[in-house]
Amino acid sequence: MKLLTYFPILTWGRDYNRATLSHDLVAALIVTIMLIPQSLAYALLAGLPAEAGLYASIGPIILYAIFGTSRTLAVGPVAVVSLMTAAALSNIVEQGSMGYATAALSLAALSGLILLGMGIFRLGFVANFLSHPVIAGFITASGILIAAGQIKHILGIDAQGHNLAELTISLVTHLSQINWTTAIIGIFATGFLFWVRKGLMPVLKRCGLSAGFAGIVVKTGPVAVVVVTTLAVWLFDLTGRGVKIVGDVPQSLPPLTLPSFSPDLVGQLLFPAFMISIIGFVESISVAQTLAAKKRQRIDPDQELIGLGAANVCASLSGGFPVTGGFSRSVVNFDAGAETPAAGAFTAMGLAIAAVALTPLIYFLPKATLAATIIVAVVSLVDLSILKRSWSYSKADFAAVLTTILITLGIGVEAGVSAGVGLSILLHLYKTSKPHIAEVGLVAGTEHFRNILRHDVQTNPAVVTLRMDESLYFANARFLEDQIHNRVASDPAIRHVILQCSAINEIDLSALESLEMINARLAEVDIKLHLSEVKGPVMDRLQRQDFLSHMTGQVFLSQYDAFCALATAGTSCAEA
Amino acid sequence: MKLLTYFPILTWGRDYNRATLSHDLVAALIVTIMLIPQSLAYALLAGLPAEAGLYASIGPIILYAIFGTSRTLAVGPVAVVSLMTAAALSNIVEQGSMGYATAALSLAALSGLILLGMGIFRLGFVANFLSHPVIAGFITASGILIAAGQIKHILGIDAQGHNLAELTISLVTHLSQINWTTAIIGIFATGFLFWVRKGLMPVLKRCGLSAGFAGIVVKTGPVAVVVVTTLAVWLFDLTGRGVKIVGDVPQSLPPLTLPSFSPDLVGQLLFPAFMISIIGFVESISVAQTLAAKKRQRIDPDQELIGLGAANVCASLSGGFPVTGGFSRSVVNFDAGAETPAAGAFTAMGLAIAAVALTPLIYFLPKATLAATIIVAVVSLVDLSILKRSWSYSKADFAAVLTTILITLGIGVEAGVSAGVGLSILLHLYKTSKPHIAEVGLVAGTEHFRNILRHDVQTNPAVVTLRMDESLYFANARFLEDQIHNRVASDPAIRHVILQCSAINEIDLSALESLEMINARLAEVDIKLHLSEVKGPVMDRLQRQDFLSHMTGQVFLSQYDAFCALATAGTSCAEA
Repeated sequence: MKLLTYFPILTWGRDYNRATLSHDLVAALIVTIMLIPQSLAYALLAGLPAEAGLYASIGPIILYAIFGTSRTLAVGPVAVVSLMTAAALSNIVEQGSMGYATAALSLAALSGLILLGMGIFRLGFVANFLSHPVIAGFITASGILIAAGQIKHILGIDAQGHNLAELTISLVTHLSQINWTTAIIGIFATGFLFWVRKGLMPVLKRCGLSAGFAGIVVKTGPVAVVVVTTLAVWLFDLTGRGVKIVGDVPQSLPPLTLPSFSPDLVGQLLFPAFMISIIGFVESISVAQTLAAKKRQRIDPDQELIGLGAANVCASLSGGFPVTGGFSRSVVNFDAGAETPAAGAFTAMGLAIAAVALTPLIYFLPKATLAATIIVAVVSLVDLSILKRSWSYSKADFAAVLTTILITLGIGVEAGVSAGVGLSILLHLYKTSKPHIAEVGLVAGTEHFRNILRHDVQTNPAVVTLRMDESLYFANARFLEDQIHNRVASDPAIRHVILQCSAINEIDLSALESLEMINARLAEVDIKLHLSEVKGPVMDRLQRQDFLSHMTGQVFLSQYDAFCALATAGTSCAEA
Repeated sequence: MKLLTYFPILTWGRDYNRATLSHDLVAALIVTIMLIPQSLAYALLAGLPAEAGLYASIGPIILYAIFGTSRTLAVGPVAVVSLMTAAALSNIVEQGSMGYATAALSLAALSGLILLGMGIFRLGFVANFLSHPVIAGFITASGILIAAGQIKHILGIDAQGHNLAELTISLVTHLSQINWTTAIIGIFATGFLFWVRKGLMPVLKRCGLSAGFAGIVVKTGPVAVVVVTTLAVWLFDLTGRGVKIVGDVPQSLPPLTLPSFSPDLVGQLLFPAFMISIIGFVESISVAQTLAAKKRQRIDPDQELIGLGAANVCASLSGGFPVTGGFSRSVVNFDAGAETPAAGAFTAMGLAIAAVALTPLIYFLPKATLAATIIVAVVSLVDLSILKRSWSYSKADFAAVLTTILITLGIGVEAGVSAGVGLSILLHLYKTSKPHIAEVGLVAGTEHFRNILRHDVQTNPAVVTLRMDESLYFANARFLEDQIHNRVASDPAIRHVILQCSAINEIDLSALESLEMINARLAEVDIKLHLSEVKGPVMDRLQRQDFLSHMTGQVFLSQYDAFCALATAGTSCAEA
């Protein structure tokens, strides 16, 4: 059983048959065609030679097929992780140098080891601290950054910058160097790809294609534009007019590479590797869960960490760079009918053949074309509606989104995610440090107690019931002291204070000391402190200390019991 | 009214009369006698010349008397803050240099400005994030560190070190340099003071003194030992035998000084100043609240920040160093009968007279005597019982205490507090990310629902009620998804899932998206999702989004209503 958990391949491999094989083969063919330009493009985005994109798509897919729990997830270079790779490496080594490619291997290795470690120690929960708004904001800002970073390739100019301001200034100051031939290719490719995405679908459907097949044809649009622009550069000798091309790509299978673990490099890459691991994991698992839910399959997050970790270690040993499960490639794989991870293995074979046989054909492929495929792919990531949605729902969530977007654009990707996560946690802590405390009364005809300000309820002058809407812990323990003190000081008729504990999920040591203080201070003015609806785990803990023995009042199972026992005449409960 | 809030002196000053005056004068006299040696000693502890201790006790007391809300708090140098001052400054400038004293002024000024800022912007809640266990651990470890740091003065040797390991090694390696004359004075003084504290009290009581007066006599013990050892050094010319003395102390009122705000210095001191502010505030407010509670007086935390801030700014302008409300001096003030902050002002006058008239008399005061008074004062801070108490109550609190103690001793004071606070927050977040989720049923004969594992309750096969014992937010949103999925997957009879929201105090945007996911997935297997006992503020927010309109089930006011409406025959509720 243990073995089956760690090697999901043993589960699906047993039932493999000819029907599954044919479905997987068809899906693999389609995904391979789609992945060739995409892999080359993401290598360019990561600042690496084009072949690194192919290599990063071959080994990792196979490793994920062995260890991953998703049947249809396609692992390889993705836009956001490639951007983070470029951001991490260009701080340390110069782009294009030998050290840059080696550092990419180290980044993949570190990221893989971090993911494996998190999987083995079952630390996947760490990723939960990336809230949805922070992720949404980060993905949107990354999309903008990536698109902006590709404009230089589209226009054939030089521009640098790690954030939007630097990029924009650099683009504007270099605008006079625009290469018009490159710009025509780039703008044509971008426009064509947008049209394929938005305008081709209806045309294909009118020609009688099914929606599913039409969708797949649309996804292979980049291949068409690659072929057309490559031919154009070759036929009209456009390199002479300054069009930058991919150039020589070695005709080879992925090489065996060894990442460097020099302490200096590891020190500089550790934090970026951690961020890449977490972001990659979150992106991958949300794609995997969305696809699995459609077929009632289950994803095991901790095993996913192991699958992705193995994939990244493999990338580092085979000339690649950090990878994760990608959205668009996985959706194509799913839609094309893939049934098992074997489809991924076949895709790897297809890409391996491409790496050996097809690379001479892309010598004349213009970089502007690859930039166009990137821009078209990432524009769909940009979704500013999260700003509106969060604004209307919760200002704290809005603040987290906005901060993430602004810091990602203004400073960089790692700073953006860190700021978003940090702010989410701080705002959460702030909210719990000043919790909602409701004074409650009995809803007539029921045994249910609600806020006296919102519901028509019965109360009793001698009994005050406060419902603390938060766990009692160090950050809000003194707040409760103050609230009870204020409530009691203003009303001499009070003889009993009941703390309704239905929303108190924990009482830590600081809070216990506050309760002792509250009890002692109330005792001095002859008021008894009672608790009601204390949850099991909280009660277990209270019984290990002597607070309950010197508490002036009692602990009641339900708030209704407490109210009936303590309320004086004049309430329906006392009369009953 | 606003004026009265910002100047509490206007409130108590109006009712000032002759009886109050005489009480305040007596208290001031006693506190002055006690403070002379203590102020000198804490200056030594902070690494400053002895007179700085007197100066830091004069102006700040007056400023606190004007702005503070406690009637009996005595403000001045205290042990823990003096230790933190020494730790902060000795990282930056050499002890004994001119720059050291200037940096102490800057530290007091920064700390004062931080406290004032927190007071004006009502940020006192920040101090709540220092949990009781972290404070207890920090105070204990500081006491050990301070005592260990004074041993060199007692033995007359040189030793350095910012943490216990460094100090111990340094003491042991220098042990051969021990100055026996100094050691005899030091050990005598320490022993005598311990005896005064523990053994003198019964003697005095047997002589017929009241407990209160005997307590005050005991507190003035340090004065006796100061007089005796100073005379001994003078009479027997012990300086010739290597006994280190306080030496020349200027005969003057506090000088007007200007702290430096050079950007470099401010940058280095900002974090230590923040830590000193928070620790000083927490220490001061807990003393103030304890004393106020005994006389039913009220402390306003935000105004306390202003009082302490003004005191520190004054310390920086009058040759002092960071100050706060001290425990022992405040207790002596209270016990000696002080009724208003005017007692503090009279104490300031007494100390000013001492600074002008008495300083020549302490020329021969041995440093070993001051070290002895420090050791005896701080030993009472050391209380390791918090380790036992927290271990039995909560492992998370225990981990926070132990970490704070070990890191404070092993690395330093700032690192210790930071680690303790950081760990408390991380453990709190971890606990809330994997909350308790109970499946509940109806307690027979009531309308109350409790955990099916702990209570004898009624359930219904078609209806599952889960009570999530935590607010729903990003850190645990996915956890709930998994739990509901697991519960439902194993039981085909389920038609309704009720989420009892009595303990859910917030639903953030991430959690709302998880609820939408849960609703959609349950809908696919024909199970309806219902909510019960949703709190007012949570409901307000849910109504601002369209989740409720596509939720398959309903929202019920009480869990009992929900159960009765959905349960099929066979439950008492359905039969009723």
